[in-house]
Amino acid sequence: MIVVMAPNATPDQIRDVEDRIIGWGYGVHPIYGEERTVIGAVGVPEADKAQYLEQLERLPYVESAIAIIRPYKFVSRESKPESTRIRVGDVTIGDTGVVMMAGPCTVESYELTMATARAIRALGFSILRGGAYKPCTSPYSFQGLGLEGLRILQAVAQATGMAVITEVMDPRNVETVSEYADILQIGTRNMQNYDLLREVGRGHRPVLLKRGMWAKIEEWLQAAEYVVLGGNTNVMLCERGIRTFETHTRNTLDLSAVAAVKELSHLPVIVDPSQGTGRWSLVPAMARAAIAAGADGLLVEVHPEPEKAVKDGAQSITHEGFVELVDACRPVAEAIGRSLV
Amino acid sequence: MIVVMAPNATPDQIRDVEDRIIGWGYGVHPIYGEERTVIGAVGVPEADKAQYLEQLERLPYVESAIAIIRPYKFVSRESKPESTRIRVGDVTIGDTGVVMMAGPCTVESYELTMATARAIRALGFSILRGGAYKPCTSPYSFQGLGLEGLRILQAVAQATGMAVITEVMDPRNVETVSEYADILQIGTRNMQNYDLLREVGRGHRPVLLKRGMWAKIEEWLQAAEYVVLGGNTNVMLCERGIRTFETHTRNTLDLSAVAAVKELSHLPVIVDPSQGTGRWSLVPAMARAAIAAGADGLLVEVHPEPEKAVKDGAQSITHEGFVELVDACRPVAEAIGRSLV
Amino acid sequence: MIVVMAPNATPDQIRDVEDRIIGWGYGVHPIYGEERTVIGAVGVPEADKAQYLEQLERLPYVESAIAIIRPYKFVSRESKPESTRIRVGDVTIGDTGVVMMAGPCTVESYELTMATARAIRALGFSILRGGAYKPCTSPYSFQGLGLEGLRILQAVAQATGMAVITEVMDPRNVETVSEYADILQIGTRNMQNYDLLREVGRGHRPVLLKRGMWAKIEEWLQAAEYVVLGGNTNVMLCERGIRTFETHTRNTLDLSAVAAVKELSHLPVIVDPSQGTGRWSLVPAMARAAIAAGADGLLVEVHPEPEKAVKDGAQSITHEGFVELVDACRPVAEAIGRSLV
Amino acid sequence: MIVVMAPNATPDQIRDVEDRIIGWGYGVHPIYGEERTVIGAVGVPEADKAQYLEQLERLPYVESAIAIIRPYKFVSRESKPESTRIRVGDVTIGDTGVVMMAGPCTVESYELTMATARAIRALGFSILRGGAYKPCTSPYSFQGLGLEGLRILQAVAQATGMAVITEVMDPRNVETVSEYADILQIGTRNMQNYDLLREVGRGHRPVLLKRGMWAKIEEWLQAAEYVVLGGNTNVMLCERGIRTFETHTRNTLDLSAVAAVKELSHLPVIVDPSQGTGRWSLVPAMARAAIAAGADGLLVEVHPEPEKAVKDGAQSITHEGFVELVDACRPVAEAIGRSLV
Repeated sequence: MIVVMAPNATPDQIRDVEDRIIGWGYGVHPIYGEERTVIGAVGVPEADKAQYLEQLERLPYVESAIAIIRPYKFVSRESKPESTRIRVGDVTIGDTGVVMMAGPCTVESYELTMATARAIRALGFSILRGGAYKPCTSPYSFQGLGLEGLRILQAVAQATGMAVITEVMDPRNVETVSEYADILQIGTRNMQNYDLLREVGRGHRPVLLKRGMWAKIEEWLQAAEYVVLGGNTNVMLCERGIRTFETHTRNTLDLSAVAAVKELSHLPVIVDPSQGTGRWSLVPAMARAAIAAGADGLLVEVHPEPEKAVKDGAQSITHEGFVELVDACRPVAEAIGRSLV
Repeated sequence: MIVVMAPNATPDQIRDVEDRIIGWGYGVHPIYGEERTVIGAVGVPEADKAQYLEQLERLPYVESAIAIIRPYKFVSRESKPESTRIRVGDVTIGDTGVVMMAGPCTVESYELTMATARAIRALGFSILRGGAYKPCTSPYSFQGLGLEGLRILQAVAQATGMAVITEVMDPRNVETVSEYADILQIGTRNMQNYDLLREVGRGHRPVLLKRGMWAKIEEWLQAAEYVVLGGNTNVMLCERGIRTFETHTRNTLDLSAVAAVKELSHLPVIVDPSQGTGRWSLVPAMARAAIAAGADGLLVEVHPEPEKAVKDGAQSITHEGFVELVDACRPVAEAIGRSLV
Repeated sequence: MIVVMAPNATPDQIRDVEDRIIGWGYGVHPIYGEERTVIGAVGVPEADKAQYLEQLERLPYVESAIAIIRPYKFVSRESKPESTRIRVGDVTIGDTGVVMMAGPCTVESYELTMATARAIRALGFSILRGGAYKPCTSPYSFQGLGLEGLRILQAVAQATGMAVITEVMDPRNVETVSEYADILQIGTRNMQNYDLLREVGRGHRPVLLKRGMWAKIEEWLQAAEYVVLGGNTNVMLCERGIRTFETHTRNTLDLSAVAAVKELSHLPVIVDPSQGTGRWSLVPAMARAAIAAGADGLLVEVHPEPEKAVKDGAQSITHEGFVELVDACRPVAEAIGRSLV
Repeated sequence: MIVVMAPNATPDQIRDVEDRIIGWGYGVHPIYGEERTVIGAVGVPEADKAQYLEQLERLPYVESAIAIIRPYKFVSRESKPESTRIRVGDVTIGDTGVVMMAGPCTVESYELTMATARAIRALGFSILRGGAYKPCTSPYSFQGLGLEGLRILQAVAQATGMAVITEVMDPRNVETVSEYADILQIGTRNMQNYDLLREVGRGHRPVLLKRGMWAKIEEWLQAAEYVVLGGNTNVMLCERGIRTFETHTRNTLDLSAVAAVKELSHLPVIVDPSQGTGRWSLVPAMARAAIAAGADGLLVEVHPEPEKAVKDGAQSITHEGFVELVDACRPVAEAIGRSLV
C-alpha cells in the first residue's frame, strides 16, 4: 500500500498517517520527495486493505492511497501458474481443444431443441447450451420455460449424448438446476450477485461466469474469487461484450480481455460472440477472432429458424450458418495449434 | 413498430414481411421511399413486441425494426400523470419536501449507529440509512453484520423515532429484512436481479431501486416495472452514478437522468451523492445540485469518524460535515419552493 | 514515481531498475514487501516522467509504474490558490457573478441574431454566443456562415453593447476570429487539437475550452495547460457532457466534474446544459443544477423559433423559455450567495 | 424520415407536422396507431435531413424523429459494392494481402529508424510507420522531431525501398507532409477535425483515418465521407481502440467494428493493436485476432529497445517480438485464404 500525502501536509500529519499504519500492525517506509511525501506500508493483509485504503483517503491531508497487490488471489496465475482444466462430458475445457458450446438462446420446445442439438452433435460437438430461466430487460418478454425447460434440456442431452450448460439466476434454484445441468451459467446481470456466487461456490457443478457488462477485468476476477473461495474451483470465465457508447453492435466484444485474462489468471476463458455483437452476420468473424485471441471455447446461439425464435433471433445463426461458422473456425484453430472440440 | 427494409429488398421480400405481421394479427402500412421501403405495423401489443422485433431483424432483407412505444407502462407518467407519493414514518416522499435519508454506509455497532442517528435526528430528519448486508466487490472485504445489523438498525430507529432504509440482496431475505426495515433498498448491482425484483414486488414495503451503474434510463424504468407488476406500487428510483471512463470520481453522477425521469415517470427520484462521487469533498456540492435538478430526496453517507469506517470512508462525511451539507442545501431547496424534511 | 516490480523479480532485475533511475539522475528508495518490491524515485522532473514511466513499464519484470504528481502545473490550484478572474466586457468571469452567455447555436441571419441578442440583453446579460464556423458530424449539414457570420455577430454585439463568444476550429483562422470575437471557443472535438491550442495560447483573447466528450478531467486540464504555456492565461473550462452508454440524453452532463475542477484548478468553469442534454425540456433544470454545483457561468442556446433553426433546434430554448430559465436560476444563484450577471 | 407524435397529440398538431413536411417539398404518410400517430416522410434529401429532424424534435407534440437512411453515402457499400483497393509502393491495400505497416511510434534518430526499418524489410514488408509530429496529452512530453523527422523517414524509406505512413495534425502541414509521406495518417484526436479532413480530401495522398476514441462507427464513416467528398477516394479506416471504463488496457480494441465496417463500407480497414491495447504483451494475440476478424492490414509499433523509447515504450514490441508476431500471424492469415504482405 502506497499513501501519497497532500502537497502541503505537515510533519504532524505525516506522523499521524504513519502512526495509523503502525497501529494496524504494519511497517512504514516514508519517501520524502520534493513536492509530495509518499509512505509505503508493508505487510498489510488482503482482507483489510480495502478498508484501510478508504480510511486513509478520507483524511484531508492524504491525496490518494494505492493498493499494490492485485485484489484477487486464488484465481491469479501468480498463485497457480498451470492452467485450470475442467472435464465436462467428453471434453476438457482449458486444454488444447477449443470447446464449442452451442444451442438455442431459449428452450422453446423439445422438438426445436432436439433439432438444434442434433445439428450440433452431427458436427462432433458435445455441449448443448439453452436457456430455461431467462433474464429479460422487459417484464413483458417471455421469461423462459423454467423447470420444464430444464427437463427438455436433460432429455435432449441424454438422447444425443451431450452435456448441458444453462443459466441459474436465483440462489434458491441452484440445487435444482444442478440436477439437470452439467455447467451452471451465471449471466452478465448477476456477475456481482454475491449470494448467487456463494451458492454456486458451495456446489459441485462447474461454473461459467459471464463478465458483467459494466465490469472491469479486475472485478470479474474478484467475482470468480467469490466462487472459488466457496470451494468450487471449476470456474471458467466468459467474455460476452461490455457496454460502451457504440450502438451499432449490442455490446462491444472485448477480445483484449481474453488475452489479458489468460495472463492474469489460470482459469479458462470462453467467448460468446452472439451476445457480444447482437448481430448474426458478425458472429462467424468474431468467433474466428476469439479463437485467434486465445479463447478456450465459444458459446454460440443456434436456432433452426431464428426469424421465429421467441428471443434473441437477431443474434442467432441457423443450422446452415453454424456449419459455415465451424468451417470458418476450424482452420484458424488449427493455425494456432489447437482444434475445435 | 416500424420495419425498415434493406435497400435492395425485392417485392417478394416486402410481401413476406407484411405477411408475417398480418399473421401476428396486426395491420400493415407500407411507405415506399426512394431508397428504402418502410412498413408500419399497428396494434402490436407490448408483451410480444420485443420478440417480433428480433425476429424481423434476423431477416437478411430487413435493415432494422424499431419500437415506437416505450417499453414500460405502469411506471410511465403517460399512464399516470400525477406524481406518486410514498408515506414513510413522518414524511412523504414525492411531495414538496426533499427527503433526507442519512446514516452510515455500514452498520458497525449500536454505539456508532446511535451516535450518527442522533446527529441526523437532531437536525429534524427521520429516515436512517445503514447497511447490514453489504455487496462488496472483494470477497475479502467486510460483508456486513447481517441479521445483527438489522437488529441494531431497528433498535436505534425505535429509540430515536426514525424509519429505516437498508439493502436487501438475496430473495430469501426479503421477508426478514421487511420485518426490520421501512424501505427496502435494491442496490446498483441487483437492478436486474429479476428474482429479487419479483420478491420485493410481492411484498408490502416501499422499495428504493438504485440505477444499475450500466443501465440506460429505459432499462431502469423497466426494472421498476417488474416491481410494480408484482403489486407493489411504492417504488422510488435512486440515481447513484453510472460507470464511465472518468476515474477521478468513483462514478459519474447523472443528474440529467433526474430531470429526465421526472418527465418520463411518476415515481419519486432520490439521489445518492456519496456513491455518485466517491469523494466526501464533492458530496455537499452534488447534494445541492441534485436538489436543483429536481430530486425528491437524498441518500447520504454519514459517519462519526469516516477515517475509521470499515467501508466507504472516502465518501462519508462527518457529523459536522453533515450539518454543513444541510446548511448548504436548505436555501437551495427553498429557492425552488421546497423544503428539506 | 513509484515502480512496482513483478512478483518474481530477481535481485538483479531490481538492481537494473534502480540503475536506470539513478542513471536518469534521480534518487531511489526501495521498499521490500512480502509479495512485491516497490521502488520510489525522487526528483524526476515533469517533462521526462511520462517517457520514463513507459520505458519502465515495458520491462517484463516491472508490473507497473505510477506517477505521483499531477501531470499539469500552471492550471493547478496547488500552483495558484486564488481563483482566476477574466474580465470580458461588462462582466468578470470567475468572480461572485454567475455569467450568462446565451444566443443561437448557429448564426443564420442578422435579423434572427439581433432578435435573440435583444431578448438576452433585455434581461441584463452581456455575452452573446453564436456559431459562425460549425463543426458538423455530417458533411451534408450546414457548416456555418463563416466570415459573414462573424460580421453579423460583431454588428449585433456593437448595436446591443454585448461581447461575443464564438468557436474557432482552424489554426489558420485564429487571427481573424480574434478580430471579431471577445472570447474564443474551442469545441469539444478540438480539445486535443494541439496546433489549435498552441495558436490560441499565443493569442490575446480569452479562451473557453470545452471538455472533449471522451476526456478525463486530467486530460482536460492538460489541454488547458497547453494554452497557458503559450502565454495566454485567460482560460476558462466548459463542461458540456461526456459520451456514455446513455442514449436518452445526447451526452451525460458531468456536474461532479464542475465541483472537482474547482478543487483541482483555479480556472473558471462554465456549463453548457444545451449540448450537455440535447433536449430543451431538460435545459432549465440542468442550468439550475449547474449553478448549485458551483459553475461560474452558463452557455445556453436560445433561438426565436427553434423548430425552424438550421441546427440543434432540439436543444435550443425559445425567448420565452429563456425568461423562464433565468427566473428559475436567479433564486438558486442567490441561495448560494451569487447572482446572475 | 419517421416522425413519432406525442401520445396526446391533437389532430391540429398532427396536421401542423404534416404541413411542415409538405412545405419542405416531401410526401407524408401518416399511420394512426392505438397509442401513437406516426408520420412517414418520403423524398427528404440527405443534405437537409439532420436539420429537419432537429426542428421536428423541438416541437413539444413530437416525441421523436428518426432518420431511416444512413447518414453517409459515398463510403457506403450500398453505393459501391466492390471493395476499394489502394496501391501504395509494392502492395495493394484492400486486396487479398493483409498489409503490415510497422515502425517506431516516434522517429527519434536516423540510426534507430533505420535499424527498425531494416528489421521490418528483412521480413518482406514495405510500409514503414513513424511519427514526426506527435499529438501528446501532456504539453511536457516530446512533441516529435517535426520536419527533421519527415526527412529521416524519407531517407530511410529510400534506402530500404519502403513507403512511409506518418501523421499529419495541422492543416497547414498537409502539403509538406505529402511531400515526404506516401500515406497520411489522421490520428484519433483529429477524426473530427474537419478543416484537416477537408485539406487531406483535397490532396492526392492516400489517407488512413483512425477512429476517434469516442466515435460511433456511423460517425467514423461520416468523417471518411468528408475526405471522399473533397475528391480523395483513397481512404482507409483504422480501428485503434475506443475509450471505455476498462483500465487494464489503454483502450478497448473493438474488433467487431472491423467486421461491421466491412459490411457497411467498401473502404479497407486496418487495425492498430499497439494503441488498441497499450501493452506489448497483448499485441501479438490481438494482431492475430484482427486478421481473423477480417482486417486488411496492421499498424504495429516496433522499436529496437522499447525500454529506452521516448514515447509509448509500454506498447512497442522489439525486433525479436516482431518476428514472433509475424510468425504468429502468418498461419492465421493463410487459414482464411490471405497472406501477410
